[in-house]
Amino acid sequence: MTPEEEKILEANKNFYSALQSLNIEEMESVWLPEEWVKCLHPGWDMLEGWEAVHESWQQIFENTKFMRITMGVQSVHVEKTIAWVCCTEKISSATEGRFETAYVQSTNIFKLHNGTWFLVHHHASHLPAPLNNDAAEVVQ
Amino acid sequence: MTPEEEKILEANKNFYSALQSLNIEEMESVWLPEEWVKCLHPGWDMLEGWEAVHESWQQIFENTKFMRITMGVQSVHVEKTIAWVCCTEKISSATEGRFETAYVQSTNIFKLHNGTWFLVHHHASHLPAPLNNDAAEVVQ
Repeated sequence: MTPEEEKILEANKNFYSALQSLNIEEMESVWLPEEWVKCLHPGWDMLEGWEAVHESWQQIFENTKFMRITMGVQSVHVEKTIAWVCCTEKISSATEGRFETAYVQSTNIFKLHNGTWFLVHHHASHLPAPLNNDAAEVVQ
Repeated sequence: MTPEEEKILEANKNFYSALQSLNIEEMESVWLPEEWVKCLHPGWDMLEGWEAVHESWQQIFENTKFMRITMGVQSVHVEKTIAWVCCTEKISSATEGRFETAYVQSTNIFKLHNGTWFLVHHHASHLPAPLNNDAAEVVQ
């Protein structure tokens, strides 16, 4: 793995740490706040623009009491200033009176901006089957 | 819309024409046949590498009698030699003894190679609700 690929996987890890933290400032720090960024939460319609994406994270964080993420397989592909990470996650979460576990596959696109990799596109969808536990890594 | 964006949307349209045609040669012509390309069909696990992706299309085409696609909203974002298209599709298909209609959201990543935009990543997932018919366009 190249140093650049390591940086991108670190940016990807920071995104899932922010998600697990339920902290909106952490989530703000990983995204490029542009009007063209997009985000698809599992089961939602695709959101466009930082304002709508930001609002969705606020809404999710306000309605979630607890979230625990275990990462599965991750792969990264870089093309100069754009990179995308494909990864699987097991997400256990608790909302008002409900506990659920979801298996998710994501495509996360990052853009290099002033020397830092920022998330610009998140497409997450439900997976049919549980992850392979051999590759599991708990998000810190 | 810039001429480059038009070219990318044309490449995206060619992908859905190939899908609807159930013709493997047409599908081969829109992809960059690299070992790092990826493809997620709705409800499947993510496939990696042209060999696996190609095999999946063969399998889908062999098991499908008929497919009809109506495109919904499409948007494109270009960053030099990489671009991604987000689009929704209504896919009506017939397999052995079964007819079904699916609403799908896709993220398609294209790479400019020798002056032509090729598909290198397809992530498709089921949408919760029908498309907005105002933006519908039948694939020719």
